[in-house]
Amino acid sequence: MSITCSHCKARPAFFLRRYSGEALCKNCFIVNFEKRVYRTIKKHELITWGDKVLAAVSGGKDSLVLLHLLAKLRKKLKFELIAITVDEGVRGYRSRGIELAQNEARKLGIEHFVVSFKDAYGFTLDEIVEIAQKRGIELHPCSFCGILRRRLINETALKVGANKVATAHNLDDEAQTVVINLIRGDLLKVVRLGVKPPISHEKFVPRIKPLRYTPENEIAVYAMLKRIELYDVECPYIRLAMRDEIRNFLNELEEKHPGTKHSIVSSADKLVQELKATVVPKIQIKTCKICGMPSTREICRTCELFKQLGISKPSP
Amino acid sequence: MSITCSHCKARPAFFLRRYSGEALCKNCFIVNFEKRVYRTIKKHELITWGDKVLAAVSGGKDSLVLLHLLAKLRKKLKFELIAITVDEGVRGYRSRGIELAQNEARKLGIEHFVVSFKDAYGFTLDEIVEIAQKRGIELHPCSFCGILRRRLINETALKVGANKVATAHNLDDEAQTVVINLIRGDLLKVVRLGVKPPISHEKFVPRIKPLRYTPENEIAVYAMLKRIELYDVECPYIRLAMRDEIRNFLNELEEKHPGTKHSIVSSADKLVQELKATVVPKIQIKTCKICGMPSTREICRTCELFKQLGISKPSP
Repeated sequence: MSITCSHCKARPAFFLRRYSGEALCKNCFIVNFEKRVYRTIKKHELITWGDKVLAAVSGGKDSLVLLHLLAKLRKKLKFELIAITVDEGVRGYRSRGIELAQNEARKLGIEHFVVSFKDAYGFTLDEIVEIAQKRGIELHPCSFCGILRRRLINETALKVGANKVATAHNLDDEAQTVVINLIRGDLLKVVRLGVKPPISHEKFVPRIKPLRYTPENEIAVYAMLKRIELYDVECPYIRLAMRDEIRNFLNELEEKHPGTKHSIVSSADKLVQELKATVVPKIQIKTCKICGMPSTREICRTCELFKQLGISKPSP
Repeated sequence: MSITCSHCKARPAFFLRRYSGEALCKNCFIVNFEKRVYRTIKKHELITWGDKVLAAVSGGKDSLVLLHLLAKLRKKLKFELIAITVDEGVRGYRSRGIELAQNEARKLGIEHFVVSFKDAYGFTLDEIVEIAQKRGIELHPCSFCGILRRRLINETALKVGANKVATAHNLDDEAQTVVINLIRGDLLKVVRLGVKPPISHEKFVPRIKPLRYTPENEIAVYAMLKRIELYDVECPYIRLAMRDEIRNFLNELEEKHPGTKHSIVSSADKLVQELKATVVPKIQIKTCKICGMPSTREICRTCELFKQLGISKPSP
């Protein structure tokens, strides 16, 4: 005896959404999944008419699903969509992701840019890691990579005239980040990390996160149903530190108390709402004294990093 | 080769405080431990001259240590100290704790009250649990117990003219509570739960938590050094639910990342600071329409509980 879909009450259910108690058939799952992302975009005004959105696509399932969904919404929401994939330069790891991103963009008819650390900074991530090791810099490759990747995406967005950068952060990522900030004693940072972070600077292209309320496992199911190719190669530099512990803990909690991840992100949202009047206006975005790009510091992290590495960043 | 105490640089260390990197001898541990509690009281103005403080003592190590510390500070801080132990009425469990609390209070020369659910409400916790089961009420005994115990402590404080109730919540308890609130999507509740919750009502005696910044394991060590008798009988009703999972998780995290519990509580403190102007004034304490006691609801939880149980609460 199979369970019937709680939405259409006709087709057999294939997905049990534990936190809501719904059982969904394939069809209703897809409709419902897409509706949630649409509602997130509308409710938080992530995209408005005439926007030019640059989707940051790594080639992983989350970002391919994001690209897929945004492509579907282009006409309805009347915005222009382009995509970018960053080639950090990691031997034996990156090429497959780039290929998948390119294929998907081509299929969807989206202009797609591949920008590389090598072209932008003069060095691949592998080369930078080597220099850092020689110089005894203790920063983890993930830290370099994050700083340089975000910078490059922002610069590209500025160049191509995009006024939004869409990233594929999902509910799991966001809940983990809230807990990590709490654990580091830096919970107030969450105000910089909402679905549409309140950061404003003439050289900063605002980021939006249409998948912030979508659980990672549902994205995986959607990708499977939509036959989006999965790319499961792990970066050799991956850092299995605190985030991994938090991920496991939240997965266990979610298993026992369905809805935990949603509650955490909702906690953070309520907090942002309350802090809107007080903390948010205090987030001062400065202009880096060296390169003129936005930063919360006097010298931005990219310039600081290049200084530490003893190499000069090519001017943009 | 033994490590030397990082404070006195003379005696051998016996306790390694991982989150600060300090190694302490027995003597310096005690001095430092007491100083932290003293500083917490002074910094947050938990106790001021002329206060009459009612210490809530269960008989467990945390509350006995609290009693011990407050007794020591009576003269210096010029306040009056009395103590209360609640006898919830749990067969085979409570008597040892009451005995320990009585002994300790006698040794320290502190007036000590034992108040029971039976006298105050007409029923022991065992009897209430039985009624609840018969009526099919799903609330856990811990929930009844918490509501009724806090109420009874507050009523006693009012009767004896205490203007503060000191509880023995420690750093571990407080960090767990922050995480539980976060996970329940109710993070803003932390503003009601600080070291000195900002709740004001003519019939509510303010609570203070002098041990909020003291880790549970240090309290255990202090109790051992001070030969405070340990009472490790577990309540038969104990609820091993979410708090236990959170406790284990935080202990694991603290092990790998010393300082985690402090950071969490500090996160909450910063949050309270930021929300002082906005959320705190919104915490409206109402007056229960039935009994006239303070509550965040129209009908307080005690009256609601008695209604559900179908028994009438004796008037105070």
